[in-house]
Amino acid sequence: MPFVTIDVTREGVTRAQKQQLIAGVTQLITDVLNKDPQLTHVMINEVELDNWGVGGEQVSVLREQGITADKKS
Amino acid sequence: MPFVTIDVTREGVTRAQKQQLIAGVTQLITDVLNKDPQLTHVMINEVELDNWGVGGEQVSVLREQGITADKKS
Amino acid sequence: MPFVTIDVTREGVTRAQKQQLIAGVTQLITDVLNKDPQLTHVMINEVELDNWGVGGEQVSVLREQGITADKKS
Amino acid sequence: MPFVTIDVTREGVTRAQKQQLIAGVTQLITDVLNKDPQLTHVMINEVELDNWGVGGEQVSVLREQGITADKKS
Amino acid sequence: MPFVTIDVTREGVTRAQKQQLIAGVTQLITDVLNKDPQLTHVMINEVELDNWGVGGEQVSVLREQGITADKKS
Amino acid sequence: MPFVTIDVTREGVTRAQKQQLIAGVTQLITDVLNKDPQLTHVMINEVELDNWGVGGEQVSVLREQGITADKKS
Repeated sequence: MPFVTIDVTREGVTRAQKQQLIAGVTQLITDVLNKDPQLTHVMINEVELDNWGVGGEQVSVLREQGITADKKS
Repeated sequence: MPFVTIDVTREGVTRAQKQQLIAGVTQLITDVLNKDPQLTHVMINEVELDNWGVGGEQVSVLREQGITADKKS
Repeated sequence: MPFVTIDVTREGVTRAQKQQLIAGVTQLITDVLNKDPQLTHVMINEVELDNWGVGGEQVSVLREQGITADKKS
Repeated sequence: MPFVTIDVTREGVTRAQKQQLIAGVTQLITDVLNKDPQLTHVMINEVELDNWGVGGEQVSVLREQGITADKKS
Repeated sequence: MPFVTIDVTREGVTRAQKQQLIAGVTQLITDVLNKDPQLTHVMINEVELDNWGVGGEQVSVLREQGITADKKS
Repeated sequence: MPFVTIDVTREGVTRAQKQQLIAGVTQLITDVLNKDPQLTHVMINEVELDNWGVGGEQVSVLREQGITADKKS
């Protein structure tokens, strides 16, 4: 009966990426916890950049300053 | 002080249906837990079909395949 | 696919009351939204009285002051 | 690692008000719990008035009746 | 800035399994969304069997009836 | 009608600190959004260190390595 919620900033996540997240999380839970995937639900919650803050600052402001959440390459 | 969150796919839930859910959940909690209804809050969270998955598949894809969540009649 | 979360203070909710909440919410959603009950999940989250506040005050303090959340009779 | 979610009705909260909420909550957690603010995330979730209920009634209906959630002055 | 919540019934999930879930979800989000893993938080919420229901029935009752959530082998 | 959830690792948060968080958040919301404090609820959710991860690692492991979330002094 797992239920997974993914809160993420709304920055152009595509339908295909959402599908990869849903399939990947469900597979992970099946593999690790041996759960029937039909009982696993995944919900993606996209949040406006004005509505998320880190370090006391809005993400929209951080983005205007050129600060991203991208993986360091 | 109960707080109830109802996550549901965004598939045309009407204003009247939302009212029925809010009234019904509040009444249920008053009946079962004897809580003052003025302290019970209900929040309905409608989720895009691309953003919800079950069994590893997006609900939007399931709907395209004709698979619904309707009660079996 | 509804998922319902009930946050409630931990004040002796019995197993039977939880069952009534789970059955009642699921029935309500089936009636109002015509959803297959097998796809409806309900989660009850019991919260310590020190960890819930209303009006800026801990519920544990309110209870010590004789203030309850009971329905006015 | 605190994560703070603020659920609030969608009634014209401005970008500046959101910034004040994010900055204020993060400062409070830093002051009270001595947490590194870079590890504190704040998420504001704005909810349509039809989707929130209190006392068994939709907030949209309460507003039509002239009932607000404003602080009593 | 993703934040992932995994709600799961409390049925003996081990520390190692939790570590696999945390590492796996974080890697998935890094791979799919190219997010800096240091900004991804994962929270596992274990729920008592009396406090979770599916199909209108408590999971504790389902388990007593021999009904599990295990993957069909 | 704001509802605030504070997810935080379970690391000895005292009753007095919880009271400070509840009072402080409620005051902040009253000041910024002009909301009646009696309609603001705050819920603190303490999470075991094995159940929270950041950067793909359990917080319990990070703590064993001497890595804290304390504010840099």
